Amino acid sequence: MKSRLAVNALGEVCAIPVRAIPDVKPGDSITDVVLAAIAAENIALHAGDILVLKHKIISKAEGRIIRLDTVTPSRKALATARRNNTDPRIIELALREAKRVVRNEHVLITETRHGFVCANNGVDVSNVDGGRSAVMLPLDPDASALRIHRALKKKTKSHIPVIIADSFGRAWREGLCDVAIGVAGMPVTLDYRGRRDDYGYRLHATEEALADELAAMAGLVSGKSARVPACIIRGYAYRRGTGNARRLIRAAKRDLFR
Amino acid sequence: MKSRLAVNALGEVCAIPVRAIPDVKPGDSITDVVLAAIAAENIALHAGDILVLKHKIISKAEGRIIRLDTVTPSRKALATARRNNTDPRIIELALREAKRVVRNEHVLITETRHGFVCANNGVDVSNVDGGRSAVMLPLDPDASALRIHRALKKKTKSHIPVIIADSFGRAWREGLCDVAIGVAGMPVTLDYRGRRDDYGYRLHATEEALADELAAMAGLVSGKSARVPACIIRGYAYRRGTGNARRLIRAAKRDLFR
Repeated sequence: MKSRLAVNALGEVCAIPVRAIPDVKPGDSITDVVLAAIAAENIALHAGDILVLKHKIISKAEGRIIRLDTVTPSRKALATARRNNTDPRIIELALREAKRVVRNEHVLITETRHGFVCANNGVDVSNVDGGRSAVMLPLDPDASALRIHRALKKKTKSHIPVIIADSFGRAWREGLCDVAIGVAGMPVTLDYRGRRDDYGYRLHATEEALADELAAMAGLVSGKSARVPACIIRGYAYRRGTGNARRLIRAAKRDLFR
Repeated sequence: MKSRLAVNALGEVCAIPVRAIPDVKPGDSITDVVLAAIAAENIALHAGDILVLKHKIISKAEGRIIRLDTVTPSRKALATARRNNTDPRIIELALREAKRVVRNEHVLITETRHGFVCANNGVDVSNVDGGRSAVMLPLDPDASALRIHRALKKKTKSHIPVIIADSFGRAWREGLCDVAIGVAGMPVTLDYRGRRDDYGYRLHATEEALADELAAMAGLVSGKSARVPACIIRGYAYRRGTGNARRLIRAAKRDLFR
């Protein structure tokens, strides 16, 4: 057993990469693939662990993959692609899938069917098959997370929260950061409102985006070009509860930037 | 020594909280305070470690703290505070400090002197002294990080990158997430552009917001109401290089949401 401490006296939180994951094909069981990789690497899955999965393996398993040579871009997609220096077939897929275009200047930013705001509606060709096919976001990543969470419970007898993550750009800041797009088995935020800090001050507006912080942490070990689509987070004392990533989407009427 | 593996065969990355940090007062040396706490907790600081500090202890040490009873709100601050259900003295400080108001609807969102976009210009009363005083962002958090990074080098003989973090809200998503507002001793992004993924596809637009992911990870162990303003990240194989958090700010002309 490579992992060391069952009880964590330091209070440390660790992200452990699960590296031995093979290429995922449509119809594969993600639970089986991940459990086999965890066993192959001789990392146990403990109660208290959180499993973070890159959305791409979920999308592939669910068949949300399309050959680009079957996609004929519209005139709008061609014009956008030319301006944005992007493959017009990716823009075409993004426009087809999007609920709404939020911005279309040097990058196409859309609102997805789920309510996420991201570039090219989450359509991506990296880490698929060398540029021949594109992967789209899962149709319902919260449902995917719940399915895997339940299958893990059955197979391991442990409650293992599941977070499905994707790398999104942000307003105001450069670079991509992994965020949670599907969650099951734990709350997605930590709500401090009404609690007092260590100085007795009552907190007003402090809600921590817990699932996004966990996704970002997993992003550090999974990287962006390496084949490490799964990661175990160990040592984080989450509170039991239900949650889903939809809960992390700010309602349009409260959002000043949509 | 509570920490376990000098060489990390699992490839895991861990966040270790530094808990024994006392109240910081103006004029304190953050380097001395943090090194004493690390020694008291019997956690060694290794080469390869990254130190993440909550901005609040930096601001306090640098005297960026003000008693609210010395602040007289303007009429604009009073009106905004009434609408936003916030202390008018906090709004007053935010408006005084801000370079520009980005939105002022149910929450005041400003661009800080550094170029960060955040609520109330980063002015905050939590974890200070029970609501009597407010803390503002450090005047130059990159310079603060560099100063601490250099002092650590002198005292420990090791190269320890330093990240200063604050909890910011985001567009489109609920909840706060820690981001890097000051960095020294490492690059702030990982640039994959031009590299090939494992399938031979050449990556176009992939730049990872490394320092923000590290800040978010530290945010998990520091919490929002607990007195854990420092955290060691161990096991992350960063590339040597220089960096600063200004580099993470998207230039206004490239930003579609400013």
